[in-house]
Order: sequence, then C-alpha cells, then structure tokens
Amino acid sequence: MSDLFNWMRAIRREIHRQPELGFNEHKTAALIAAKLAELGIEFRTGIAKTGVVGFIGTHGPAVALRADMDALPVTECTGLLFASETDGIMHACGHDGHVAIVLGAAYLLKKDPPKGRAVFIFQPNEEGSGGAKPMIEEGVLDGIDAIFAGHLDPRYNVGKIILTPGVNTAYTNGFDVEITGLSGHAARPHEAIDAVVIACSMVMQIQTIVSRGVDPLKPAVITIGEIKGGTVNNVIAEHVILRGTIRTLDDVTRQLIFERLKTLASSFAAMHGAKIDVRIHNGYPPLINHPVQFETAREAAGGDNVVILPTSSMGGEDFAFFLEKIPGCFIRLGARKKGHEQYPLHSPRFDFDEEAMKTAAEFMARAVRIEIDRLAAAAG
Amino acid sequence: MSDLFNWMRAIRREIHRQPELGFNEHKTAALIAAKLAELGIEFRTGIAKTGVVGFIGTHGPAVALRADMDALPVTECTGLLFASETDGIMHACGHDGHVAIVLGAAYLLKKDPPKGRAVFIFQPNEEGSGGAKPMIEEGVLDGIDAIFAGHLDPRYNVGKIILTPGVNTAYTNGFDVEITGLSGHAARPHEAIDAVVIACSMVMQIQTIVSRGVDPLKPAVITIGEIKGGTVNNVIAEHVILRGTIRTLDDVTRQLIFERLKTLASSFAAMHGAKIDVRIHNGYPPLINHPVQFETAREAAGGDNVVILPTSSMGGEDFAFFLEKIPGCFIRLGARKKGHEQYPLHSPRFDFDEEAMKTAAEFMARAVRIEIDRLAAAAG
Amino acid sequence: MSDLFNWMRAIRREIHRQPELGFNEHKTAALIAAKLAELGIEFRTGIAKTGVVGFIGTHGPAVALRADMDALPVTECTGLLFASETDGIMHACGHDGHVAIVLGAAYLLKKDPPKGRAVFIFQPNEEGSGGAKPMIEEGVLDGIDAIFAGHLDPRYNVGKIILTPGVNTAYTNGFDVEITGLSGHAARPHEAIDAVVIACSMVMQIQTIVSRGVDPLKPAVITIGEIKGGTVNNVIAEHVILRGTIRTLDDVTRQLIFERLKTLASSFAAMHGAKIDVRIHNGYPPLINHPVQFETAREAAGGDNVVILPTSSMGGEDFAFFLEKIPGCFIRLGARKKGHEQYPLHSPRFDFDEEAMKTAAEFMARAVRIEIDRLAAAAG
Amino acid sequence: MSDLFNWMRAIRREIHRQPELGFNEHKTAALIAAKLAELGIEFRTGIAKTGVVGFIGTHGPAVALRADMDALPVTECTGLLFASETDGIMHACGHDGHVAIVLGAAYLLKKDPPKGRAVFIFQPNEEGSGGAKPMIEEGVLDGIDAIFAGHLDPRYNVGKIILTPGVNTAYTNGFDVEITGLSGHAARPHEAIDAVVIACSMVMQIQTIVSRGVDPLKPAVITIGEIKGGTVNNVIAEHVILRGTIRTLDDVTRQLIFERLKTLASSFAAMHGAKIDVRIHNGYPPLINHPVQFETAREAAGGDNVVILPTSSMGGEDFAFFLEKIPGCFIRLGARKKGHEQYPLHSPRFDFDEEAMKTAAEFMARAVRIEIDRLAAAAG
Repeated sequence: MSDLFNWMRAIRREIHRQPELGFNEHKTAALIAAKLAELGIEFRTGIAKTGVVGFIGTHGPAVALRADMDALPVTECTGLLFASETDGIMHACGHDGHVAIVLGAAYLLKKDPPKGRAVFIFQPNEEGSGGAKPMIEEGVLDGIDAIFAGHLDPRYNVGKIILTPGVNTAYTNGFDVEITGLSGHAARPHEAIDAVVIACSMVMQIQTIVSRGVDPLKPAVITIGEIKGGTVNNVIAEHVILRGTIRTLDDVTRQLIFERLKTLASSFAAMHGAKIDVRIHNGYPPLINHPVQFETAREAAGGDNVVILPTSSMGGEDFAFFLEKIPGCFIRLGARKKGHEQYPLHSPRFDFDEEAMKTAAEFMARAVRIEIDRLAAAAG
Repeated sequence: MSDLFNWMRAIRREIHRQPELGFNEHKTAALIAAKLAELGIEFRTGIAKTGVVGFIGTHGPAVALRADMDALPVTECTGLLFASETDGIMHACGHDGHVAIVLGAAYLLKKDPPKGRAVFIFQPNEEGSGGAKPMIEEGVLDGIDAIFAGHLDPRYNVGKIILTPGVNTAYTNGFDVEITGLSGHAARPHEAIDAVVIACSMVMQIQTIVSRGVDPLKPAVITIGEIKGGTVNNVIAEHVILRGTIRTLDDVTRQLIFERLKTLASSFAAMHGAKIDVRIHNGYPPLINHPVQFETAREAAGGDNVVILPTSSMGGEDFAFFLEKIPGCFIRLGARKKGHEQYPLHSPRFDFDEEAMKTAAEFMARAVRIEIDRLAAAAG
Repeated sequence: MSDLFNWMRAIRREIHRQPELGFNEHKTAALIAAKLAELGIEFRTGIAKTGVVGFIGTHGPAVALRADMDALPVTECTGLLFASETDGIMHACGHDGHVAIVLGAAYLLKKDPPKGRAVFIFQPNEEGSGGAKPMIEEGVLDGIDAIFAGHLDPRYNVGKIILTPGVNTAYTNGFDVEITGLSGHAARPHEAIDAVVIACSMVMQIQTIVSRGVDPLKPAVITIGEIKGGTVNNVIAEHVILRGTIRTLDDVTRQLIFERLKTLASSFAAMHGAKIDVRIHNGYPPLINHPVQFETAREAAGGDNVVILPTSSMGGEDFAFFLEKIPGCFIRLGARKKGHEQYPLHSPRFDFDEEAMKTAAEFMARAVRIEIDRLAAAAG
Repeated sequence: MSDLFNWMRAIRREIHRQPELGFNEHKTAALIAAKLAELGIEFRTGIAKTGVVGFIGTHGPAVALRADMDALPVTECTGLLFASETDGIMHACGHDGHVAIVLGAAYLLKKDPPKGRAVFIFQPNEEGSGGAKPMIEEGVLDGIDAIFAGHLDPRYNVGKIILTPGVNTAYTNGFDVEITGLSGHAARPHEAIDAVVIACSMVMQIQTIVSRGVDPLKPAVITIGEIKGGTVNNVIAEHVILRGTIRTLDDVTRQLIFERLKTLASSFAAMHGAKIDVRIHNGYPPLINHPVQFETAREAAGGDNVVILPTSSMGGEDFAFFLEKIPGCFIRLGARKKGHEQYPLHSPRFDFDEEAMKTAAEFMARAVRIEIDRLAAAAG
C-alpha cells in the first residue's frame, strides 16, 4: 500500500508543479494517459478537448468515478517544494489530488477487478465554463449506471467522509459588469465620466442585494472576484470591468438577483450617463445527490468515518450535470493538514494532507465495488 | 511657409504613429536629432536618458524653448490615419505637436537668427515621474536667461494665445493605495477578507475628502485613474491596487489630503483586518509664471489673440521645475479642431487642429526674439 | 357562535382604535379586565406594570394561553373605519387580535370548563424591551404546566395552523449607534465633522457585514429602522442616531455581528475624528417549541389545517422567555385577508381577516383541553 | 460710551436668552420697538410679519442700516449665563449682536443726527426662506439711497472690518429629498423597500457631485444638514427626508447641481422601486457689493482696521436682495473671543466678544454719516 501512496503522491506533485487552466490541461492529460497505460488500463483521450476516460471490464453494471483536472488563475503562496512553476496559475482547489485519487482507485480496481465495469472520467475545466456538459455530449455517460466524485475538504480530518443528502452544491452563475464612462484628464473630472467611481458605487450597492433584497432565509452570495479599470494614474478611466459569481440554492432567489443586477446597472447608467452592460453566464445547476448512491457511499465509508452535513454548500460543482443524467453521489473527503494553519479552497495558500489521497482512493474503489454488486443484485 | 507647415505636420504624424512612454522616447529622440541635423542645428542627445537639446548662436542672451516628448498609456480611439501603431500607448496630451512646434520655431530661428542664443530643450517623461528635474541636474539650464514652453489647448480656437498671470498649474502628486485582504473561495466570503469591497468602500469614502474635508474655496481634485484587483471571478481577491493623482493649489490643502488619505487607509485596515499601504509620490510644484516673460509672451502674441485666464488650471506641469530655477512663462496654444466634437486632453479620442502648430511655431520664435532683445537692452 | 365572533370583533376594534405602546397599555388592560369580569373570570391586574392574568379552575393540571397587548410606533395608513385614533401609534402586529383571541378562548373555556386550570396571560410590551421576563419574575408561571401562544400570520389563509418544530423565531437584539461629529456652518464643511455623512457611510458599510462577513448559510438580518440627525438644513449636523435590530439564528453569527458593528464604529470614529457609541441591547433568545406541546397543537389543529414550516422565521418573540421556563408551543394562525392586497406585519397598511380570530379562539381552547387531558393522563 | 456698551450688552443678552425662529421674532420685535421708543426714535412694526423699521431725520439723503433678527433651530451648548432658555433654538449666527449693533448705531446717530435721514431696518427670517424680499415688497427701501449691513465674524479680531469687493456671498438654495420606500417587518427586508438604505446610498452618491461632477475651480458645497426617517428600530422605514443646502458662486454650476440631484433621485427611485421627490427651494442670489459704498465702508473703518478678503464666502445672505434694489455694502465685523476656543458660526458653541458690538456700532454710525455727506455733496 505504501507503494500506492508513493505512486499517487508523485502524480499529485507533478500535476501540482505544472498546473493548467480549463481546457488547456495538456500535460495533465498526457500524464494521466501515461499512468493508465502503466496500469494496463484502456483509455481514450481528447474527449471534450483535454478529457481522458479509462475503462476496466467489458460487461456487467458500469460505475464511474470522476476527477476534475484544471487549476485556477491564482498565484501560489504556499512555499511548497513542488509549488506551481507557472506564474499566476495554481492547483488551489485540490484537483491535483482528485486526479491522483481516481488513478489510485483505478490501481486498486485493476489489481482486483470488480464484477462489472469501472470507468474513470478525468474531466477538464471544472472551474471555468464547465467541462462536464461537453463530455456528456461526447457520450461519456453512455451505458454508465452510476457515478461518484470526490472533493478534498480541508475543514475535516483525514479519513472523514462527508455526505450531504439531496442538494449538495449551489446554483453558480458567473457574471461580468462592463462600465463605459468617458475618459479625460485627471484634473478635469467634470469633463469626463469616471468609470472607477461608478464601478465602486455599484459594488457598494450590489452589497444591498444580499443584505436587503434577498429573503434572509434563502442563502445567497455575490462575489466580485476581479475588478480592472484604467491604464494610468493621471487619466480618468473610461472602462472598468467587474467579474463575479452568484451562488444561490433556489431559482427564485437566483432570478431575483439577476433582475436586481440588471436594474442596478441600468439605473447607474442613467445616473451617470454611462453605458453599463451586465452579462450573466450560464452556470452550474445545484448538485443533487441520489438517495441510493448516498447509501452506497455511506456504506463504503464505514460508520465512524461518516459526517452527515445536512445543508448544502454555496460552492458550485460541474459534477451536477452528470447527476442530472445518471444517479450518483458527490462526496467530500477530509484532508485537514494537522499542525498547520488551514487555508480554504481557492486560497493561494491552500494545501492538504496527502495521506487523505490514500484513504480516498480506497474509499472510492470500495464504493465502486459496492455499487456494482448492488446493481448486479438488483438486475439479477 | 506652407513648406514649414508640411514639414512640421510630417514630424507630428510620425511621432503620433509611434508614441513612447516616459524615458523610453528613443525613436522620438532619434527623429528630433535627425531633424535638428537637417536644419544644421547643433545638438546633444542622451540628456536625462532620452532628452535632446539643440543650440543656435554662441553669445548674447540665451532664451530656451521647451517641448515635452512622451506619450500616455492610453489606447487610441481617434480613427486617425496616422493613429498610434503601439497598442495601449497614445499621444493623448499633444506632446507630438509640442515637439513639432519647437522644431518649427528652430527652423524659423535658424533661418533668421536672433541677436543672442536660442536653445531648444526636448524633455522626456513629463507625464510620469518627471524629466525636468534630471535635465536641470544635468545642467541644461546653465547659462540660460529665460525659458518658454507651450501646451496645445483644445478648448480655444487656433491662433489664440492663453496666458495666466502667476500660478498656472497645480501641485500634482501621484499616489498608490495597495490593499491586501485574504483570498478565499468565492462561495465562502466569511472565511476571506474581500479586497474588492474594501477598495470600493475606500474609493467612495475618498470622495468625501473633496466634498467635505477640504475648504470649498480651495480647489482640489483626487482622481483614481486605475483600479486593479483579483485574478478570476470565483476567487475572492486578496490584492487591489488603486493608482491616482492629487491636484491642489495650496500646500495646506495638499497636506490635509495626504493626512486624510492615510487616516482613511489605516481606519479601513482596522475595520476589515486588512493591510493597506498608501504611497504618495513626489510630484510637481505649482507652475508660477514670471511677470516679465508673461509680458514678453503677451507682446509676442499680439493684442487680439491674447486670452487672459485669471485662474490656475488643476493640471500639473513638469515645466514648473524649470521656472523654479530661471524666469519664464508657460503658454497655452489654441488648437480646437473646428467641425469636430472636441475631446479633452488625455482622452483616447483627443486630437487637435494641426494648423495650430504653425501659428504656435511663429509665436514661439517671436517670443524668443523679443526676449533676447529685451535682455540685450537690459544688459546694454 | 356568531355572538362570540361579534363580541371578539368589538373587542379587537376597540383596542385597534386606541393602540398603546409597551408598558403603557392602560386602556387595553382596563378593557381586558372588564371583559374577564363580564365572563365571570377571576383576574389580577398590574402585573409587570400593565399585565393582566385571568384564571379558570382551582385544581388539576394548569395550562396557560398568552396574548401580547402592545402596539407599535407606526402611523397607520389602512383607512379602516376603526383605524388608530392616536397619531403615530398602530396595532401593526396584530396584538389587538391576539387579545381578542385569548378572550374568545376564555369565553369558550368558561362556558364549558376543562378538567384542570386554564390561565390567560395578557402580556405588555412584546415589541419593546420585553414584558415576558418581568411577568415571569412576578410569578405568573408558578404552578403552570404548559403554555401556548398564537400569532396572526397574513401569509396563510384563515383556518391554517402553522407549526415549526424546534427553533421558531430568531435571536433579536436592538442596537443604537450614536454618532457625534462637530456642528458648523453648512457652507464651511472643512471646519465641521459632518455626522450625516459619517452615518450614511456606516449604514453602507454595515451592509457588508451581512453580504460578506457572515457565513451565507447562517441567516442574519441587520435592519436600521430609524435614522435621525440634524435640526435644520443649513447647519452641519453634530449628532445622528441610528436605531436598528439584529436577527440571527445562532450565537456565533450573533457575536460576530456585535464585534463587527463595534469595530466598524471605532474605525469610522478614528477615520473622521468623531465619537461613535454602539449600544447593543439585550434581546430575545430564539423561541424553541417543545415536542410534546407541538404535538398537542398539531392535534388541536386537525390534520388538513396544519402547515409544517420547517425553518425558523427571522422574527423575534418575547414568548421565548416563557418557553425557557416551561414547556409549550408557539403557533402561527392563518389570517390572510382575501381579495385585498396583503401587507406584511409591521407595515402601516397591515390588516387581517377578522374571521381568523374565531377559528383561532376555538383552536386555542381546544389545545388547552387536549393538553390538560394529556397532563392528567400522564399524572394519573 | 461705556453706558452705551452696557445698554447694548443688556439688549444682546436678553435677545440671546429668548431666541426666536424666522417670522416668529415677536419678543425680539417688541424689545426693538421698546428700545427705539426709549431713544425717542420713530418706528413702524409688523413689516413682513415681525420686521421693525426706525427713522431719524425728515429730509436729505437717506441711508439705511439693516440687522437680521432670527435665531436657528440649534440646541445651545455654550454654557453661557444668558444661554438660550428655549430648547432647540439658539442665536448661533450672531443676529442677537446684529440687533444690538444697529440699535447702538441708532443711539449714536440720534444723539448727534446726520445731515440727512437714517433708517434702521430690523429684518426677520434671514436664515429661513428669507425676510428681505417681503420687506422690500412692503416698501422699506422706498426713498432709501444706500444701505449697509454687518455680520459678526469670529475668525477676525475685534476692531477689524473685513471687506470683499464685488461678489461676497454665494447662491444659496435649500433642498429637500423625500424618499418613500415600503415599510415592513425588520426581519423581512425582502418584502419591504428600505428607505434608510436608499437615503444613505444617495448621500454617498451626492458626494460625487462635488468631487467629480463639478469643475474643481468652481466652488460648490452640498450640505445635508438634516436626515430623518423611520419611527422605531424594528420596523423598516418607509420615509426618509433629507434637508440640505447648495452653495455655488456661478449659475452654471448651480444648475448642474440641480440637474444632477434630480437625475440621481430618479435613478435611485428606478433602482429600488421607490418614490423620490426632490424639491429645490428658491434661495438667495449672490450678494454683490457696490464699489461706491465699498469705499464708504473702507473710509469709515480707517486704514489699519481694514482687511480686504478677495474671494467670496460660500455663505448665503438674504441682504443680497437689498443690494439688487439699491447700492450698498455688506461688512464683516471682527469678533474673535480672545482666550477661548473659537467655534464657527452656526455651531452650538458659537459665541463672540461683546466688545465687537461697540466698535461695530461706532463704525456703522460713521458709515451712515460719510455716505450721507457723500450723497449730499453729489446731489449738491
């Protein structure tokens, strides 16, 4: 087993060192392909651009494991020996670990094959506009009976398997607000329309959507992750762009926020004689776990390790699209790094305890076996 | 004369096509050198990095003309045939015209030399941290008795010479505000410190410095020309930087704004548990015209063309440093483009009537002659 | 029965016409006393200033019903024939109906006495600093076995009985923020410290506590219901007072909001050289329904009428203090006014369907009987 | 002379003790009438409601002195023995002193009558909607050749006479912004439209009119002196009213601010679904001193005492209407209280050195004599 751990750790660290943004996971895909080949597992590459799928078995019930592959445009500040070698890109969401975990599960399942088919889906672009949908469109779910995916979670100790019945992640919609004022000399603001002041006014007003506009019992988040405007200190900025994300758990609140954002923009445009465009992007639906695979996951975890988290997270997960098509369950995998200050997912200081990968790979392999047996029994 | 105009226009357009930022005016300097050589005027290059100085005459009173050479980091939107070929850089402040004007004056003075020395100072980096000071430190004013500089002004018709007695431009101080919060997952704002919201709060609060903190009879401008923060829509931004400029006409107001900015920053840092650094840059002092050269300029302009503007502008001018050393006058040169919508200086749509360059070159040459004669008479 | 309805309606309308603020419910108390006397029910007055308690029966299990008596400082805009005759005070929370309902239940229980004791608690000052605590301190719960209270709810149809298991209302804490700047002449803001601008800056910044500071999965509300500052348009305001309320469902979020409010205030004080005091008042704890009385209420309602509302409201309820001492249940009573636009509780246009009072009185009487029988059986 | 000082001081203190708001100066008017009667000076009362006019002389040139009589709705915090006995009203602008000064001048001119007519105009309601206009409409300026008015100024030492050529005070326009949202329960912000948050957003956005919208070389002040909204902490406010004043020195800036305020209001109304009314009140025009009476004042002051203040104040003065009709001059009278912290006009702590009244009365009497002599010489 410690061989497996060393193998997985090397994979994780190599991916961590060379993080790639969504749909550009070329080196990552090549590494995955090489490792599947090493294990003697059949695979296809180039699915949804950079996706890879591996296959074990030829008949019987088919159960898939999915790992996401992409990194984030975050500048790493961990100081790790295997820290990102690409400036401005980092595996700050643990997808490097996810790849290693599913490869680890493949290792175990290859060694001792289940009584059916196991499929390993390595999905690109979970953080961006989504890689699940195009993979589904290219048929990766055809013939698959159930699917599982895991996500490392630094808030829980290694070994803990965190399960949420039903709704597990939020609606997520990216949005851009593009403000066009009128540039001019910094010393003559009255001849210009200052896009920086309009942008900042809007950001402050956007806070009131969550604080006053939304039912306080309906969770909602509006984060503006990026603001960019102007080119130099002594010219009034003509353009500012805000890029953000909206998280909600119900469609009514979601639509209300869309409406408010648009009304806010048109009102600020009228107020200042500016042009303000709001673009709300299609995002991910809520991820809804299926009760049967929830039970499979609970069983695979074993009693003491299970933590039931009754409420959804506000995070988004592209895996939601898979669960719209076939039954399955999303699982959080405890990964707290003991003795260290723990930074949250997406933080430039994020890291996790690599031991978590071993437990997780074992858990995932176990879940596949249980689910295949269950399906076979049901079919039988 | 139309030969001169064509010559100047070609120079202006070539410079306009290849704008260069402060201290990088290499092609511009080479062009100036070539043109001075063409006129048979002696010159030195490489002063204060990219500055050029030309000389006519060997004895008698010495009068200088100064032109600034640098462009701005602005993306041109004029649609001119000779628009900037360098993305993100533009002669949006008319310095291309200033170079052509002083070369035009050199042309005229070379043809019909004055009874003394004429010096042509081509100064780099007026828009940035300043090129006047290093030029002075390298001795360009040594032995010079008086100096004039002009600036195209799109608010007045071609031929108008706009003069302000005494204080003519403002104190100008650039500043940066760097906000460091704590990055984190967009869906978990409570675990992060959102630098975007802090930055926008600060920008709104900064407005109250001018609207409430400053004596309303003391003009003051605080422009934030640039705001940059975050890397992606779904990660809470750890860093935001604001870059701006402060314009004032008196030192009390200036110091008060410095103090308020710093207090504001430290208070917001305490409020949000963030780190906020304020850096206020050394800028330009107010430009103060000398009464004698003011009269020379008025005489050179001729009665009907003079517009006396009694109040200072809020613009800054590096030329102020020259006038701290020797007497002189700063002159605005009418350059409104008839039949077009006129955009202000620093606008990405700024342009001027090229006819203004001819009138301005003649005016500048005339001012040099009058001043040399006046100095000679005084010395006599 | 229609006699009872007419009797209750007259009571409700008389109270509605003469609303009284917390601890000033003198006329209301006198009316209650007169009606209890009319029914031949013993009572005590002057409990917790203006509270009244009526008693039926002398031995056996004791079950109480509680009604709140006070009105709100709201100016009524209903246009009702029996609208408030006291300017600026209104029964905008339906407490007029609550008194009528408990008197109606008393009427029914007096007519056909239960096999135990029924107690009718008319409590002052639910909306203000609380009347439950002083009533408890004066012993109103001594010897009582269980307690019920109802609240009219305009979001549900008449006849519906709305029940929430466990936590039913929120922590509620009033707060004041008192800002002291420095007054001065409206034309010389630089000589003053403008408390209006500070107050408004704070209100905007307070929005970020809910939008950014609090876990989005932990419901929280900060409402500033009142803002008052300045005396005249042409003098800069020295004082502004904000009065608000904080609603939370967990103590961690509650304490975090307290901390943030205080930090925000001290930071704004430092920023502007002002004095800012924050006073957070002791409020109500969450109201937690007891499972046994929850079942009694469900039984009294009868199957079809019950609506189970699984999540707590963000409203506060002084009744929480009673349930800290003895078991009981809080019940929402459907009261939508059909064919009218329905305004929420606390609105100056709030009204309810008076038919709701009849159904509610019958339900309350039934709940008392069921609970007494249950207690008797348990004791037996 | 010390008798005169004691007499004036007693008058000032009696008026200070019983301040009265505009058009309600009944006791003040009665006191003025009594004092004029005591001096044997003819007078008329009831002009423009509470105005009083006294007359000396029957023929020859006529010169008037004007004092304003009204107090401000400010709560006095001076701790003076003769502090206001009326809660919430205070002579915070020195009008108590102005009345005493003009009565003192009347005393001196009665004792030693000038060679013409002296008229003493005691004008109501300078701080509010204006008393000058109705007094003019009732004919108080008929037959008057010139007029002077003084204002105590705590920024200058006693004895100093401060004169401004030309424009001396600003355009002043009061305004109200009335915001109507939708009231509701404090715990359910999503069902209401929170007028407090809208009001505060507007106040912050109004700051940008001065900081960004107005030419920085054109002085402008927008002060919101009063904000009032809501009735209780736990009900969302339906109404908030802002009351403010706009000060400008040119009509273009004034109209721009009017437009911006209205656009801002309509945009915020659209943004939040609220109703927002802006009412801009007719105010005072700029006060423009006439050159001839400026010279009279300078002569009356005597060389060393004169301070020439070249720029206008941002204060407003109802006296502007008198100077639209007849020539005259407005004079500031040094009144700094030595050895005390000096608070500005309109401050609840404002006080002045009473010695200033003596010097001022002598100066005013002298100005009347000089002006009458000048007019007689001119007529002669």
